[in-house]
Amino acid sequence: MDKFWSPLVSRLQPYVPGEQPRDQHYIKLNTNENPYPPSPQVITAINRHVDAGLRLYPDPQALSLCEVIAGATGVGVRNVFVGNGSDEVLALAFMAFFSGAEQVNFPDITYSFYPVYCGLFGVKANTIPLEDDFSLDLRRYNGLPGGIIFPNPNAPTGRETGLQAIEALLAENPDTLVIIDEAYVDFGAKSALSLVGRYPNLLVIQTFSKSRSLAGMRVGFAIGDKGLIEALNRVKDSFNSYPLDRLAQSAATAAMQDGIYFNNIRRKIIETRTQTVEGLEGLGFEVVPSQANFVFVRHPQHDAGELYEKLRSAGILVRYFNKPRIDQYLRITIGTDDEMQQLLQRLPVLLAD
Amino acid sequence: MDKFWSPLVSRLQPYVPGEQPRDQHYIKLNTNENPYPPSPQVITAINRHVDAGLRLYPDPQALSLCEVIAGATGVGVRNVFVGNGSDEVLALAFMAFFSGAEQVNFPDITYSFYPVYCGLFGVKANTIPLEDDFSLDLRRYNGLPGGIIFPNPNAPTGRETGLQAIEALLAENPDTLVIIDEAYVDFGAKSALSLVGRYPNLLVIQTFSKSRSLAGMRVGFAIGDKGLIEALNRVKDSFNSYPLDRLAQSAATAAMQDGIYFNNIRRKIIETRTQTVEGLEGLGFEVVPSQANFVFVRHPQHDAGELYEKLRSAGILVRYFNKPRIDQYLRITIGTDDEMQQLLQRLPVLLAD
Repeated sequence: MDKFWSPLVSRLQPYVPGEQPRDQHYIKLNTNENPYPPSPQVITAINRHVDAGLRLYPDPQALSLCEVIAGATGVGVRNVFVGNGSDEVLALAFMAFFSGAEQVNFPDITYSFYPVYCGLFGVKANTIPLEDDFSLDLRRYNGLPGGIIFPNPNAPTGRETGLQAIEALLAENPDTLVIIDEAYVDFGAKSALSLVGRYPNLLVIQTFSKSRSLAGMRVGFAIGDKGLIEALNRVKDSFNSYPLDRLAQSAATAAMQDGIYFNNIRRKIIETRTQTVEGLEGLGFEVVPSQANFVFVRHPQHDAGELYEKLRSAGILVRYFNKPRIDQYLRITIGTDDEMQQLLQRLPVLLAD
Repeated sequence: MDKFWSPLVSRLQPYVPGEQPRDQHYIKLNTNENPYPPSPQVITAINRHVDAGLRLYPDPQALSLCEVIAGATGVGVRNVFVGNGSDEVLALAFMAFFSGAEQVNFPDITYSFYPVYCGLFGVKANTIPLEDDFSLDLRRYNGLPGGIIFPNPNAPTGRETGLQAIEALLAENPDTLVIIDEAYVDFGAKSALSLVGRYPNLLVIQTFSKSRSLAGMRVGFAIGDKGLIEALNRVKDSFNSYPLDRLAQSAATAAMQDGIYFNNIRRKIIETRTQTVEGLEGLGFEVVPSQANFVFVRHPQHDAGELYEKLRSAGILVRYFNKPRIDQYLRITIGTDDEMQQLLQRLPVLLAD
């Protein structure tokens, strides 16, 4: 430990993102990226802005982008906040709403950045076990002190939590802020966006990284009551005024405007998921029901850690979490039909090994 | 105040960035942007990456960029940290080194984001007055508890602090972390980068927004002892793993590689500054000696706030800070020769008004 580190730094347990190999020799099914490129309109929009204007600061409010998101989601522009990926939006939300809280409540199996944020902002992480089938029983969250956060669909399980249960949670706990992290919602789950107008205790967070094929451009957003958005802006403007560069703003604006392309590729991924699930079950895998662009699977006869290594050696990257309850599972991103066919063709050899 | 806000949010006094008007009808001398476009090699590098690869996450470590910065500054790659603009680097540095400290020491007249960070991370801001001529006497910082931060050249004054005084400060206070914010160093001041190897208590922060003409792409960096860089990485990976998108990484890498273009435009700006200072002094302005891409000026016969408004009405944006000691000054960015000629031609009319 360095003598200049604040006490905070040595306590931190930083998040470990999935590998981003610098070579291109893998079928990359490990970080839930979209296998399809961004909309051609995104490429056109970026190209139009690669010019002398890059010498100028971007709009710190990203107002054009906020307006387009507001229009697409049916809210007002003051109900929209944008940030540098949904990770930054989540970090700022923890700072704005949970720092100083008694605790933050989330599932034991969930996005592994939540406990990291708790560590960073010095708030207790209260984890609540998922059911045995990895479903999320929101009744367990009623009446708890502090805020609530969970992804829907959950990660890394892919399971959806129904909107009725979410609405009941919001209605029964009006003084508790509930953040729903909808990074994967566009692949078949129902969004809670429709509840925003009625529940001021709801903040919905989405991203351009998955369904909009823009993981490389780092844009996420939050939708909620104006007071919540104002708090996020206050924290953002006390941390970094211009988190979205000019090209990221252009890219995200165009991506949100091309609804046809968006619907085409997410439908395609849902189809590929259905076929992949069939193929995996045919090989003896157990597959958690998924409404995300990944599946969470285990094989009763094979150790997940070993299978992860074998797949890696065979040129296929998937994600393995060596953690309680899920250390016999693999998370496999849904790629193109061709990539999933290659996975399904190589697996029998590896399983027979 | 909203019932969901953390106690922190209502206490915050967010930073107010200079105006970024959405129309293009101003001569924009208010946010210290570079009047020249980025290097043609930057444009080429970005264009090469506007493709299907945007669907993939960027390298969270931005290793290629760090390697190029390390090569250009003569340090090892583990001495380099990159972030989303130098504002994000500063914010993470405050979190990593100053949170929990007794106080942070900086000049009374300086970059107005420093007190904002103190508010965000709950640490006392101890401001130390600049001398009457706005020079920074670093001997006043000897033996103080907590860390030290100042820009060199200082903002918004433009005055340089000599390297000898900086080295004396580092040598006399080996247990105190000193952060030097060199956002404007490339316009004539001496960088403290040469001291990094000898003083583990020194962190130097620079940006691509000014001398590299990339304010629109949000890239800043820090150079220091490995232990300091490790702390920054730990905090960054507990906040947002991928703050630099793919195009920002490509742009900054190419900008750092084109040293010839960099030297040409910064020399040009220094020349224009010399001419601008002469012109302003000819009109009766007092100009603080500047080694930055801006000048800090007052006119003994004219109220600065009124002059700011008159310039704005005449289509010229400059920066006015309504704060103690500097409320009779204007900060004027050095633009192109043509822009500065227009300023010098319109001023006599406004002064006679």
